[in-house]
Amino acid sequence: MDTPVTEAPAVPHSPAEEDAPWLDAREQRFWRAHLEVGKLLEHQLSRELQAHNLAINDYEILVVLSESPEHRMRMTDLATSTMQSKSRLSHQITRMETAGLVLRQECPGDRRGLYAHLTERGWETLRKVAPDHVRSVREHFVDRLTDEQLDAMYAALAPIAEHLRALRGRS
Amino acid sequence: MDTPVTEAPAVPHSPAEEDAPWLDAREQRFWRAHLEVGKLLEHQLSRELQAHNLAINDYEILVVLSESPEHRMRMTDLATSTMQSKSRLSHQITRMETAGLVLRQECPGDRRGLYAHLTERGWETLRKVAPDHVRSVREHFVDRLTDEQLDAMYAALAPIAEHLRALRGRS
Repeated sequence: MDTPVTEAPAVPHSPAEEDAPWLDAREQRFWRAHLEVGKLLEHQLSRELQAHNLAINDYEILVVLSESPEHRMRMTDLATSTMQSKSRLSHQITRMETAGLVLRQECPGDRRGLYAHLTERGWETLRKVAPDHVRSVREHFVDRLTDEQLDAMYAALAPIAEHLRALRGRS
Repeated sequence: MDTPVTEAPAVPHSPAEEDAPWLDAREQRFWRAHLEVGKLLEHQLSRELQAHNLAINDYEILVVLSESPEHRMRMTDLATSTMQSKSRLSHQITRMETAGLVLRQECPGDRRGLYAHLTERGWETLRKVAPDHVRSVREHFVDRLTDEQLDAMYAALAPIAEHLRALRGRS
């Protein structure tokens, strides 16, 4: 998440800007906190995954494949699922193939192309890394919220996720 | 944000994993909603900025520079502020220079290197784009929260941001 300012720029507004619904101070501090936590948390979790020689995107791929039937997924679906472009995903899978974590294979009789498979080594890596990663998520985020905060935030976020998912489906 | 699974993998645990503090179902659905909203929101805001030929990272750079004294910042500080590596920032600034939005210049008498300056065109671009961007942030996020939700989420996020900022400072 990369977009801080949504306040009025500190200059006289042009007429077209009069209608601009600038965030007020309360909204602004919330929006900035949201962006900052997203970014700093990703940074911290990435750093801790580096101890296992994994990028955070690699971890995500391992997780998604581990949850798929037969531990494999069509490359195009994997791109959608991880919200990456096909070309970026392709580069990432190449790196992960070199590391022995995944394998790219055509599916006989399926014209729709290549699959990424989780290898035995990829699966073992995920099993080894996951407990540390969960501890990081707890330490830096989840355990810093009360049960009430966690439930309230879920109630606030779930309909927003649904809205954004629907928008994305239309695109 | 890219890291979904923090549940127990669906296999028998090895002894080392017995201690792993897996997220329970409630924590898990919250964590996934948090990641999903972060990712989908960034995707949606990026799409809407594309109408202005701006990447979301470009927008952030424009904002940060517009808020800096004399509309400029040392490249190393800009990298820290935007949480990018120096090499990645350098590539981005090159692209933005080509588009006429920023200018890289040495500061006479300052050995600590290059500054990025916001150009007049960069400033005009920000002023033109900001109102639409704010509308996007409202439409897809802020206006979907009640005042109470917004304040509750800020109260939850602010100490986490502080914790993560402190950790980062130590690194």
